[in-house]
Amino acid sequence: MSSAYRGDETLAQLLAGAGLAQTPAGIRDLVAGVLAAPEGTDPDAWLVLVGDKLPDDLAGQLRALKAQLAAAHAVTHAPDHAARLASLRAALKRRGLDGFVVPRGDEHQGEYVPPRAQRLAWLTGFTGSAGQAVVAAERAAIFVDGRYTLQVQAEVSRDLYEYKHLVEDPLLDWVADALPAGGRLGYDPWLHTAGWVERTRQQAERAGLTLVACEDNPVDSVWADQPPPPLAPVEAQDLPFAGVPAAEKRARLADDLARNGIGAVVLTQPDSIAWLLNIRGADVPCTPLPLSFAILKDDGAVDLFIDRRKLAPGVESHLGNQVAVRAPEELGAALDALGRGGRKVMADPASTSAWIFDRLHMAGSKIEREPDPCALPKACKNDAELAGTRAAHARDGAALVRFLHWLSEEAPKGTVTEIAAAERLYEFRRTNDRFRGLSFETISGAGPNGAIVHYRVSEATDRRLEPGSLFLLDSGAQYRDGTTDVTRTIAIGTPTPEMKERFTLVLKGHIALSTARFPRGTTGSQLDALARRPLWSAGLDYDHGTGHGVGSFLSVHEGPQRVSKVPNTVALQPGMILSNEPGYYKTGAYGIRIENLVVVRPLDLPMAERPMLEFEVLTLAPIDRTLIEPTLLTQEEVVWLNAYHARVREALAPRLDPVVAEWLGQATSPIIL
Amino acid sequence: MSSAYRGDETLAQLLAGAGLAQTPAGIRDLVAGVLAAPEGTDPDAWLVLVGDKLPDDLAGQLRALKAQLAAAHAVTHAPDHAARLASLRAALKRRGLDGFVVPRGDEHQGEYVPPRAQRLAWLTGFTGSAGQAVVAAERAAIFVDGRYTLQVQAEVSRDLYEYKHLVEDPLLDWVADALPAGGRLGYDPWLHTAGWVERTRQQAERAGLTLVACEDNPVDSVWADQPPPPLAPVEAQDLPFAGVPAAEKRARLADDLARNGIGAVVLTQPDSIAWLLNIRGADVPCTPLPLSFAILKDDGAVDLFIDRRKLAPGVESHLGNQVAVRAPEELGAALDALGRGGRKVMADPASTSAWIFDRLHMAGSKIEREPDPCALPKACKNDAELAGTRAAHARDGAALVRFLHWLSEEAPKGTVTEIAAAERLYEFRRTNDRFRGLSFETISGAGPNGAIVHYRVSEATDRRLEPGSLFLLDSGAQYRDGTTDVTRTIAIGTPTPEMKERFTLVLKGHIALSTARFPRGTTGSQLDALARRPLWSAGLDYDHGTGHGVGSFLSVHEGPQRVSKVPNTVALQPGMILSNEPGYYKTGAYGIRIENLVVVRPLDLPMAERPMLEFEVLTLAPIDRTLIEPTLLTQEEVVWLNAYHARVREALAPRLDPVVAEWLGQATSPIIL
Repeated sequence: MSSAYRGDETLAQLLAGAGLAQTPAGIRDLVAGVLAAPEGTDPDAWLVLVGDKLPDDLAGQLRALKAQLAAAHAVTHAPDHAARLASLRAALKRRGLDGFVVPRGDEHQGEYVPPRAQRLAWLTGFTGSAGQAVVAAERAAIFVDGRYTLQVQAEVSRDLYEYKHLVEDPLLDWVADALPAGGRLGYDPWLHTAGWVERTRQQAERAGLTLVACEDNPVDSVWADQPPPPLAPVEAQDLPFAGVPAAEKRARLADDLARNGIGAVVLTQPDSIAWLLNIRGADVPCTPLPLSFAILKDDGAVDLFIDRRKLAPGVESHLGNQVAVRAPEELGAALDALGRGGRKVMADPASTSAWIFDRLHMAGSKIEREPDPCALPKACKNDAELAGTRAAHARDGAALVRFLHWLSEEAPKGTVTEIAAAERLYEFRRTNDRFRGLSFETISGAGPNGAIVHYRVSEATDRRLEPGSLFLLDSGAQYRDGTTDVTRTIAIGTPTPEMKERFTLVLKGHIALSTARFPRGTTGSQLDALARRPLWSAGLDYDHGTGHGVGSFLSVHEGPQRVSKVPNTVALQPGMILSNEPGYYKTGAYGIRIENLVVVRPLDLPMAERPMLEFEVLTLAPIDRTLIEPTLLTQEEVVWLNAYHARVREALAPRLDPVVAEWLGQATSPIIL
Repeated sequence: MSSAYRGDETLAQLLAGAGLAQTPAGIRDLVAGVLAAPEGTDPDAWLVLVGDKLPDDLAGQLRALKAQLAAAHAVTHAPDHAARLASLRAALKRRGLDGFVVPRGDEHQGEYVPPRAQRLAWLTGFTGSAGQAVVAAERAAIFVDGRYTLQVQAEVSRDLYEYKHLVEDPLLDWVADALPAGGRLGYDPWLHTAGWVERTRQQAERAGLTLVACEDNPVDSVWADQPPPPLAPVEAQDLPFAGVPAAEKRARLADDLARNGIGAVVLTQPDSIAWLLNIRGADVPCTPLPLSFAILKDDGAVDLFIDRRKLAPGVESHLGNQVAVRAPEELGAALDALGRGGRKVMADPASTSAWIFDRLHMAGSKIEREPDPCALPKACKNDAELAGTRAAHARDGAALVRFLHWLSEEAPKGTVTEIAAAERLYEFRRTNDRFRGLSFETISGAGPNGAIVHYRVSEATDRRLEPGSLFLLDSGAQYRDGTTDVTRTIAIGTPTPEMKERFTLVLKGHIALSTARFPRGTTGSQLDALARRPLWSAGLDYDHGTGHGVGSFLSVHEGPQRVSKVPNTVALQPGMILSNEPGYYKTGAYGIRIENLVVVRPLDLPMAERPMLEFEVLTLAPIDRTLIEPTLLTQEEVVWLNAYHARVREALAPRLDPVVAEWLGQATSPIIL
């Protein structure tokens, strides 16, 4: 239902008529925040922030106002990055700075950054997921990693920025060269972790430079139409999904604090806070979290620093009276109060803004530098969360099978493109119960695009799925009861023997990790080589981790556990969900990845001398049999594959119509050695 | 040739007659130092420190004097540990200390501690290889790990010391309980690393205590007959063995220092100094190193702080004129001079005494905290070192095969004991060319003693090798051209099916690591699980690392690489020697371990997309076929085993007499699946 916006006066009357106290000006601010959040699966979800059960005419006018403001915000002209750079330089000069660092992250150091914090993109044009720029008086540079060497050239003018490597080119080397001797390098202490500032300060001092914290961000001072922080409804994650009441979680963590003589912990990770308080939100894409800060005290009380306008009706009573909702602006004063209390305060230097550390220091707090105490209990899913994720995976698997069946009919016609495939898969998923959007942007890579590990399809790169090629499809969804993430590689037409050989090597690694049994205390790093060994034996490898943690209707990438070459000292524990995703990538030709989610569970072995663990596979989707070279598999591997396929068939067939179920029967029929 | 000592006057005459300037008093001091070093394979080796080519009568008198002094030093009465503890407490009181930490280590934090530094053993009676004591006014405690829970009870009086766990019971918890509020805990800054002091100081401050560095060690002040530092001859490790001239090594490291703007590095690890200067010594058991300190400057010059009396004739000219030999007492002044120089000084906080860090700090040095720069190049053996180690392994393998043949004949008689076996093996080894002693005390464990991972046989524990049992033998030797370390597990009589099953699981892990192919950049930690996986699959594991680095006629345990559950970030590089030693231990029943040394080498694979590495096996000795359950092996594992055994046979048979060669032929005959 769309109607034109009839003006603020009409809106004021409708609000008053509905018994609501808001003003049109307040509604306009609210809508600006709503527009700074992703639209989500229900574009009307935000209306709840105006009021419950709005009259139709009021709701219609609110929709119309939003549409009008959205149109006004739409970019109509190409941004002038040279002018932006010049205005930032003028701002730096006014502040007596010789340089300034512009990172990609926001105050929470999260994977997704709201529009307000996309300063790097605004300034330089670079839209990649990692990078930073440094602006000096005469020179400027942008630092990106190997994933973005092409993209940076397309997006960022070489006339304005030198291209540097984020890892291999030390920031301070460039800075020392570009700044005058004894120069002052500014940074926004909200946007860097305490750890980063400590390391960078040392390097700056060695280079004879001074690192200067800026009270307010110079980019913001020259970004006229900078969006406001996002305002998406915060809702309760109810007990049937969360499994454990928030009060119990708070009490447990508070006990740990009290036992260690720590007065409070400052929480800056929105997914930690969402887990702790059993709330969810929609402030950023693909991850159902509300941006917020919190302080948990050793008596279990929480100060939650969040824009109150985001709270859907009923959320405050869900939070309970031990949780005080406070404005984000009050965080500084609350940190000061902690300092005056004289108690130890815990904070994680790896993820907490330097601003918070500085403020705690100035207030006289003794800081206990410890990892975020929510991370580990959040990672160990309880029975309700595991039941939810299993249910979500069954729905998700059925959608994926419907898609694969569709693909098996359409792809041979040669008309399917990467975008069309991703959209079709989305359509299959969105009809699922409890679907709440994608858990990340689908990686839909045909032929050589499949070899680009972090590929995101665009109109410019969209390829057809061609006979004789491989199609790599990495996708996942958010459901109210769980988060999914699955990769399948599908042969379009007849694969080459090389493709089959390498797919089978990847599969052998996937099975090796999937069937691993290991004693309690084992870390993901210890298991990583199991997944790589078959590839290594052929002189091959892949340049990404083998497995990441996955949340429960939360972030699809979470810690603290990880299966990776990089050392990780976190022992795998029952309830932890991980991906198992070895791959192989032949540049310019094709990419292969096979990804299931698994959950750690106890293993009872009759003769075991140690408490043992193993993985239960959560993901339910067939692995393309036409890509398997059976002679490369051992008997045990064939047994695993056939048993897995039988499980997929039995779990999903009842959810499918007969034609698709029959296709699935074929796709999962046993391999006979 | 033994004769009685005829007195100092005679000795003086003989010295003068040989044209030597030494006095009998000086000779007595020298002999005291010689007696503080292990005797070694040549008990007359020390004579070179008096002079080259001594007249027979002088040599005879020197031997006689040494024998007399050795007899005088021999302990004749049981030590009174209560009295020693009381005198230490009195010394602490005089110094105003409420407690004092007595670690097991010396100034170099090495594996072997000379008699002078065995303060823990002198004070408490505890002779284990790891532990520490803390003495307070009324209470005292000894901290040992799980290996020594029985031994500590046998050696240390519970009336004097509380028993605590070295890892699980935090030192400062006990100290905070035992010392008065605000108490002063003393420590000897020579005997703890800078890292230890920093951590412990923090903990002490949290507990409201003060950590106090002692100028001299209070134990020394009450230890009347404390031995002097050891004096064993230092000799050149000649170029055919060392492969690279010391001047080249010095220049290479000095270049790195200069490039990083570092003026000097303080070296405190005797094996690093031995490697750098191509020298060897005999100050401690089993490891041919001279205890010393050194400072390497950025021009390649070295100050070597070592008792000049240890230098065999010719060593100074071998060291060359860029190496200044200075007295150990001059180290402090040299550190002060570095501080005055104003240049950055590198030191390794993980292995360098706090005393050195403190002195550098006080002198105004900027300390670069970096790992010992000798460790990595020392670990990567050059071609000469590898040729040497291969030759040493062939000799060592032949000796081990002779022993195994002997054992196959003697063990069935039921008369062989653990000690007898170890002695017999020593006899076979000592006739080898270039033999320079054991590389560690042989682990000779029969039946249940084999299940004690760090077992050392004594008269009290000596067991017979009984039919139906397993015999675990872990031994190694030092040769002038290489260091060996090998473990074999031998069935005495007929093994049980369980023994065979578990031996075969250990063998599968051993083969998995041995055959690993991996890309450059891979660390030992990443490979560890390959060796454990077959055991894990059965719910079994072992509680030690899988592989340690091994030196070249140096320490049998060296870093920086390691194959272990514990994260290690050092990439394996060509030339690194490692052990491959998975095991299985059934407490009270038997132990299994299969250990070969391997060396990392490049691997050329036709289709490889990465620079790949693999292992070459160095150790040459049969693996007991009667303990293998062939049905548990894959075809690939059988192929590896048969190929390895063929190599052992071909390499060693020419070195053996026909009877032993024939036995080896049987022991290495192929397994047919």
